[in-house]
Amino acid sequence: MSKNLKYYYDLMSQPSRALWIFLEKTKIPYERCLVNLGKAEHLTDDFKAINRFQKVPCIADNQINLAESVAILRYLCREYKVPDHWYPHDSRRRARVDEYLEWQHHNTRSACAVYFQYMWLRPRMFGSKVDPKRADQYRVQMEVCLDFIEREFLGQGAPFIVGNEISVADLVAICEIEQPKMAGYDPCNGRPNLTKWMERVREETNPFYDQAHKFVNKLAQDSIAKNKL
Amino acid sequence: MSKNLKYYYDLMSQPSRALWIFLEKTKIPYERCLVNLGKAEHLTDDFKAINRFQKVPCIADNQINLAESVAILRYLCREYKVPDHWYPHDSRRRARVDEYLEWQHHNTRSACAVYFQYMWLRPRMFGSKVDPKRADQYRVQMEVCLDFIEREFLGQGAPFIVGNEISVADLVAICEIEQPKMAGYDPCNGRPNLTKWMERVREETNPFYDQAHKFVNKLAQDSIAKNKL
Repeated sequence: MSKNLKYYYDLMSQPSRALWIFLEKTKIPYERCLVNLGKAEHLTDDFKAINRFQKVPCIADNQINLAESVAILRYLCREYKVPDHWYPHDSRRRARVDEYLEWQHHNTRSACAVYFQYMWLRPRMFGSKVDPKRADQYRVQMEVCLDFIEREFLGQGAPFIVGNEISVADLVAICEIEQPKMAGYDPCNGRPNLTKWMERVREETNPFYDQAHKFVNKLAQDSIAKNKL
Repeated sequence: MSKNLKYYYDLMSQPSRALWIFLEKTKIPYERCLVNLGKAEHLTDDFKAINRFQKVPCIADNQINLAESVAILRYLCREYKVPDHWYPHDSRRRARVDEYLEWQHHNTRSACAVYFQYMWLRPRMFGSKVDPKRADQYRVQMEVCLDFIEREFLGQGAPFIVGNEISVADLVAICEIEQPKMAGYDPCNGRPNLTKWMERVREETNPFYDQAHKFVNKLAQDSIAKNKL
């Protein structure tokens, strides 16, 4: 029986992109339900009835309305026949994927999102000015995190965050790391392992990776061009 | 074959307490390895060799060194025969537990920990002064989160965060919510559902709950007494 999976998302949201790439790549059938964050569609009463947290991404099917991208990824890996490498059944490898997924909340996600929001989103949404000292502080926090990923997760010779095959940890990680590009920051600069890994994940998931990042890439090019002026 | 599970922890750390209560309650055999955060034992090279993230809690057994309390809880539920209610195999219930575990990182955990650190830890560690405006800001953030838990997670008639039985979500939640008590803040005040739920989780997990919170309770009493002066 079809589960009638509905996926609520906005590709400006990092976890929305990770989940969108996963759904497309694994060919899980779903209905696209766009929620325009720029128009505050996530704050309507209609959307609150779907997701009490009023955030994207989220899903709704015949048995559950579920929020939190990492919880959704785990649910989809249980409910659909997806290749094992995405969320390995081997206990040790699964533990490593889980370790990254939990660690990233207060590291990759918060560091990259805070920098992006302060440098790009808030000035555009609220007209707020960028204080250079605070900008530096947020940049350094982000760089400590990116350097840790470069050294600890990608510096031991493995092509992906957990071993030799791509997993949901790579998708969740890379979509966060793409975000500061829109604010003109290149996460690859000076990080050869990260550079090769990003290219590898892109190749593994294309054409969906580029489709998901179409708008991000356009804004990133604009920001880089502006920085060169 | 015994796994020779070693558990590295400090009961001043919220996730250390959650995991300690879980290990004791489920009778998983383990070796207690105290890591005194006050003496910065987590920052030594010896500890770095055990956990590259240099944080508690973490575990080491014959097959893995693992960090991140939520990842560890999932690993232990796979590797040991623990009652199903802790991390249900039913897909829908497991998804709900996962949803809370992911949501809490940027809500319960960050809101309660930031308040505790600003009001209690930083003044004692660094002699920093409390700015009343910022204190109010952190208190309000925490109260928004606690009110959401009161209303959305505990306001629908279910005795626990996910349904009728205790799960790891309750342990992870309650240990974070205990933390601001040390800074003299009572999370139960004006929240009847939270109050009953905290008593329920305590009853389900005692005597381990009280043992884990012995030092927290002492400091909480001192803070409350000081506030009354």
